[in-house]
Amino acid sequence: MENDKKYSPGLDGVIAAETKISYLDTEAGQILIQGYDLIELSKTKSYMEMVHLLLEGSLPDEHEKKSLETNVESECELPSDILSMFKLLPENTHPMDGLRTGISALAGYDPQIDDRSPEVNKHRAYQLLGKMPNLVANSYRIIHQEESMQPLKHLSYSANFLYMITGREPSELEEQIFDRSLVLYSEHEMPNSTFTARVIASTQSDLYGALTGAVASLKGNLHGGANEAVMHMLLQAGTKPGFERLLEQKLQKKEKIMGFGHRVYMKKMDPRALMMKEALQQLCDKAGDDHLHVMCEAGEKLMLREKGLYPNLDYYAAPVYWMLGIPIPLYTPIFFSARTVGLCAHVMEQHAHNRLFRPRVHYTGARHINSK
Amino acid sequence: MENDKKYSPGLDGVIAAETKISYLDTEAGQILIQGYDLIELSKTKSYMEMVHLLLEGSLPDEHEKKSLETNVESECELPSDILSMFKLLPENTHPMDGLRTGISALAGYDPQIDDRSPEVNKHRAYQLLGKMPNLVANSYRIIHQEESMQPLKHLSYSANFLYMITGREPSELEEQIFDRSLVLYSEHEMPNSTFTARVIASTQSDLYGALTGAVASLKGNLHGGANEAVMHMLLQAGTKPGFERLLEQKLQKKEKIMGFGHRVYMKKMDPRALMMKEALQQLCDKAGDDHLHVMCEAGEKLMLREKGLYPNLDYYAAPVYWMLGIPIPLYTPIFFSARTVGLCAHVMEQHAHNRLFRPRVHYTGARHINSK
Repeated sequence: MENDKKYSPGLDGVIAAETKISYLDTEAGQILIQGYDLIELSKTKSYMEMVHLLLEGSLPDEHEKKSLETNVESECELPSDILSMFKLLPENTHPMDGLRTGISALAGYDPQIDDRSPEVNKHRAYQLLGKMPNLVANSYRIIHQEESMQPLKHLSYSANFLYMITGREPSELEEQIFDRSLVLYSEHEMPNSTFTARVIASTQSDLYGALTGAVASLKGNLHGGANEAVMHMLLQAGTKPGFERLLEQKLQKKEKIMGFGHRVYMKKMDPRALMMKEALQQLCDKAGDDHLHVMCEAGEKLMLREKGLYPNLDYYAAPVYWMLGIPIPLYTPIFFSARTVGLCAHVMEQHAHNRLFRPRVHYTGARHINSK
Repeated sequence: MENDKKYSPGLDGVIAAETKISYLDTEAGQILIQGYDLIELSKTKSYMEMVHLLLEGSLPDEHEKKSLETNVESECELPSDILSMFKLLPENTHPMDGLRTGISALAGYDPQIDDRSPEVNKHRAYQLLGKMPNLVANSYRIIHQEESMQPLKHLSYSANFLYMITGREPSELEEQIFDRSLVLYSEHEMPNSTFTARVIASTQSDLYGALTGAVASLKGNLHGGANEAVMHMLLQAGTKPGFERLLEQKLQKKEKIMGFGHRVYMKKMDPRALMMKEALQQLCDKAGDDHLHVMCEAGEKLMLREKGLYPNLDYYAAPVYWMLGIPIPLYTPIFFSARTVGLCAHVMEQHAHNRLFRPRVHYTGARHINSK
């Protein structure tokens, strides 16, 4: 009985859900988001427009866009007790753990916590999106005994986000590139964190719970933690020849090298990585210092030559975030923050067409008793 | 391309993992835990012995049992900042959300947080098990502005757990029945919460994160929330005829009735429910008040007659917890607490034989662009 079903470790290739939200069309080489190509969207649309697309199902007109921005940005404050709570967390709390604790605690402030209707979930999603920059920046700041930051309401969503992290108002180029990175991270079919959120939501648990689980998932270094690992490699290596040597050593020792390959793309370049590579070039030009771009390109070539692997989004997002002055431990929290909108869309879809996730196992253990 | 794979909603019948930990052998009608029958174990073994079985892989001898009890019970204290944190949570925080926030915050106290070796994970599991009664009882107490309780170290694990919840030392019968309920809840193959924990752990995320996600999953009323729903029905109905009326009305309105049926057992009685039914009888006899037992039995008969459905563990655990003087909102946190050991075993197994969970989807959405 327990061995008659096909078993695919990691559910590789298994269809786990039907969705109208997004699709990695590996044959066409496209990332479809609500029917649009993500790369095309990232060239002309802002993160707030992506939010509208993912939660309302359509791209907004100018009026809708303004109204959405006002709505989300009006939710930027956190309850003061949440900020006080961050003060109680030990100083070596991982930023993803701080963020997870903050999202988990926010559930208690929701007077409609038991209501999972699409309207209430959508309202909740906008509230959470509004609070995310504050949660990410201030959980990190407070845990590290820095001054907390007040949101600057005259700035755009992305400019304020970057301001709250770095403590200075970004240039137009920095704002634009950071916003683009949020667009590129916003949604991506069914990675582990999205799957986690849907599995949790399928018990009719709420959005906060689903997001809490997704933070925990994204923290893992086989998932969101990759962008931080890439930056540490680049810093450790320091120079182009140093980086090439480091990669070769890792290849020799058969160590996993973060930032390359992807379960679904595999043999193709992640088109999102190309966009961030371009952004890195722009930031390097502006700074008059090309060394990160040179290093990354050398690593890209080496890995393609030696292993046939292409860089993924994390590989180029890491040096971009470095050039934007973002502390490395915030790379994954920012990834999560950008993905929040995609996660909310998936949780709403799961709640609307639900079937409890409850798979089976192959039992390979002992039998100390006879079957009855 | 996107439609050529078989899709089983909720992964119903899909094998998602290989495990040596447990197996629902529906044909033999047995719940195998490390090769033993759970029901037989529940008749003679304590929860601490189950902990040994699940984390060490074998039943303990007397010496091992004593040493495990000492080890786990020595971990019963919480950092005072965790208790202070509970004071900051809003009063209508759901007990599962309070518990989730507490577990999430504990991650910051782990100096070996990045170490996922079996030894460190096991040590971490014992620490968490030691803290669980304190977390469950005091998060609830403090959020509801009650006095927090200090663990009584001369009591057994289960007696102290019950004491911290109710504020009085339990009788021997109460201690034994509560302990048995923990044994019965300790492990159960691959329900949604266990699956959630393994999915999260497969990114190489840590035990705290996996457990945080599992709390979120178990909160849902298609999963752990069922035991509380059962008790609310019993209280609402009040009497045997009232309960029968209530069930009939719900059946007429085609409402889902909690406490009956189970994805995997379906046509059979959950043998764990039988054990708790017996415990309910014992508690009713002792109290000289049989009405909850009479009501539950009437409900059981009615549901079998009308729908062919048998009660599950939650159906009889609910009135047992009521007779033990446990506040209803703590039923699911206690379920989680008992299951913590099973979850820890699964996370350790996942870390030891890992493959990232990353399924695919059927895309059923729009296409506003042509394929390239």
